[in-house]
Amino acid sequence: MRDAQSRGESLIGATAHVTLEPCSHHGRTPPCCDALIAARVARVVVATTDPNPRVAGQGLERLRAAGIQVDLLPTDHPAAIRSRELNIGFFSRMIRGTPWVRMKIAASLDGITALPNGQSQWITGEAAREDGHLWRARACAVLTGAGTVLEDDPRLDARLPGLARQPHLAVIDSRLDTPPTARLFEPPYGGLPRRLWFFHAEAGSPQADKLRQRGADTILMPGANGKVDLGATMRELGRREVNELHVEAGAKLNASLLREGWVDELLVYLAPRLLGQGAGMAPFGPLERLADGTPLRWLDTQALGTDLRLRARIDGRDAFLTNR
Amino acid sequence: MRDAQSRGESLIGATAHVTLEPCSHHGRTPPCCDALIAARVARVVVATTDPNPRVAGQGLERLRAAGIQVDLLPTDHPAAIRSRELNIGFFSRMIRGTPWVRMKIAASLDGITALPNGQSQWITGEAAREDGHLWRARACAVLTGAGTVLEDDPRLDARLPGLARQPHLAVIDSRLDTPPTARLFEPPYGGLPRRLWFFHAEAGSPQADKLRQRGADTILMPGANGKVDLGATMRELGRREVNELHVEAGAKLNASLLREGWVDELLVYLAPRLLGQGAGMAPFGPLERLADGTPLRWLDTQALGTDLRLRARIDGRDAFLTNR
Ligand SMILES: NC(=O)c1ccc[n+]([C@@H]2O[C@H](COP(=O)([O-])OP(=O)(O)OC[C@H]3O[C@@H](n4cnc5c(N)ncnc54)[C@H](OP(=O)(O)O)[C@@H]3O)[C@@H](O)[C@H]2O)c1
Ligand SMILES: NC(=O)c1ccc[n+]([C@@H]2O[C@H](COP(=O)([O-])OP(=O)(O)OC[C@H]3O[C@@H](n4cnc5c(N)ncnc54)[C@H](OP(=O)(O)O)[C@@H]3O)[C@@H](O)[C@H]2O)c1
Repeated sequence: MRDAQSRGESLIGATAHVTLEPCSHHGRTPPCCDALIAARVARVVVATTDPNPRVAGQGLERLRAAGIQVDLLPTDHPAAIRSRELNIGFFSRMIRGTPWVRMKIAASLDGITALPNGQSQWITGEAAREDGHLWRARACAVLTGAGTVLEDDPRLDARLPGLARQPHLAVIDSRLDTPPTARLFEPPYGGLPRRLWFFHAEAGSPQADKLRQRGADTILMPGANGKVDLGATMRELGRREVNELHVEAGAKLNASLLREGWVDELLVYLAPRLLGQGAGMAPFGPLERLADGTPLRWLDTQALGTDLRLRARIDGRDAFLTNR
Repeated sequence: MRDAQSRGESLIGATAHVTLEPCSHHGRTPPCCDALIAARVARVVVATTDPNPRVAGQGLERLRAAGIQVDLLPTDHPAAIRSRELNIGFFSRMIRGTPWVRMKIAASLDGITALPNGQSQWITGEAAREDGHLWRARACAVLTGAGTVLEDDPRLDARLPGLARQPHLAVIDSRLDTPPTARLFEPPYGGLPRRLWFFHAEAGSPQADKLRQRGADTILMPGANGKVDLGATMRELGRREVNELHVEAGAKLNASLLREGWVDELLVYLAPRLLGQGAGMAPFGPLERLADGTPLRWLDTQALGTDLRLRARIDGRDAFLTNR
């Protein structure tokens, strides 16, 4: 609307197309409904209603009360489907209270993510890594495990020219083993700030102070066996307004997240290589029956340089998008 | 030619297009050159010369000597490339003395081919299995290991309606552990006969007689550590006129074949499922460096029912097709 107005275009009598029901409350910005009413648009086409209980149909009502024609697209309209996919993390947080969790895995065709000696950089090529940075950038936060931090000392920022926002970084680190000299404490690419959250399991750790001095939050989330409680962590990330969570961890944390049902989607890059032995993708189990495996639904397949990208969703995990 | 003649079409002055240089010697059939000359065709377009030392250009010469115009397609002509692919097993056997080895693997997205308790049937669905039978049927022989025979008791025939030829079956079975009651001794689908070859490593095995009584050949190929010599086995399969060899074995034999460099191509069916732990595709190694992995070249990707089929070739393994 601002753009149209800055070009001298009048919005009076116009039709506005919106992906999400305009809000009726003051959040970070004033209510969107008020802006549409003030601009005197004649009609608003809404792709999806807002699952936020503070909006939940009130936006549509407010517009209608102001004499604006409001058309809500049917659930199966292509634009409604695309709008829900665009906001899948927001829908997830509003409806489930936890982020939409996308797990990124780089592996050889035979499913190896790291050699027995720990080597894993770089299994995939430049184009796949660049695509991975796009997915990191799309997420509100990246999540990794202490094992990956200690082994690879990664920065886990999104290194894309011109990027206007960095995803925050969450580390699952039961005993706060991350050294204060780790590269993830360096300013991220582009110099834009991000938050650092360390989820740990032991109270009174002397390490906590050192990490806080480096600008991080340390969040005590004790679970079973001296490990971090992953469910409580997901709910806390939801409270911290993380809509989409991009997981980039090693086999151990991947296995735990899958075992406990905290993964919604997989982003797998397969390199044209066989590596034989090493860490797998997510060695949960052992299962007794094939039917007990985690069922997936393929989303798409794409060639990226010499690598292949396979996207898949845990079957049925996106049912909350439509069952409302 | 017979078909044309049976329809009353004259071949005099016609142009014949052939995928492979017509032979000039008596093999299973009389020389093809003689038939073309007798039919008085005017021109023969040849996609590839015959790598068979008994032909090797003599076919072209013989046609030319008979006054027929012979056009050999350039190596990079699309029809020349397709013809070499069609005959890749024949080219392999003629030039390398060993079959073209295609390894079929059915796995979950995370590269698991069998659960820790041995369960592996069926990881993939009906459409993938049917496609697998087409590839079996295309091969001259199927190769498996004793582990698969003992665990799954498979028939390993090509179950396709109307199939006119069954691939032979080779089993790598160091101590001849296959019981004479195994299902692979039953008449294959369609009732058409096939040969059964057991490659073993111990002389004087009392088992050998029993398997021979079931119609099998037992072939002594002792290698290191009481196991079958895989290189000698490949050369013997070449001598037995196996052009394309379709490997359908477990992780152990797959690993040995890859470690020793006997695999040319991979036919991987990925099911939309995560299985966590279990046997991998081919756990050779352990490698020290990612760069030591077996480099592949993707051929194609195809959806088959709910599974994905990925075809790949060991990089450079088909160089013999053009470097002549
Ligand atoms: N190919 C890829 O896509 C990719 C991506 C990232 C990393 N990697 C590779 O993966 C390797 C590191 O993997 P990793 O498995 O050692 O480390 P990881 O999965 O990154 O981190 C696992 C750590 O998380 C901690 N943790 C705390 N609470 C947990 C819980 N509830 N469940 C599970 N873990 C919990 C564990 O601590 P404790 O068990 O000590 O309590 C464990 O040390 C490196 O070689 C790295 O290069 C590969
Ligand atoms: N998903 C799939 O695509 C697929 C396909 C087929 C089978 N499978 C599964 O694989 C499992 C069986 O696998 P497996 O690994 O136990 O058996 P395998 O690989 O089929 O057979 C291995 C056997 O071959 C023998 N062998 C003899 N000489 C050898 C040599 N030079 N190198 C390697 N092996 C040699 C070994 O005997 P010794 O070591 O005793 O000497 C070993 O017992 C079953 O669960 C089956 O369902 C899965």
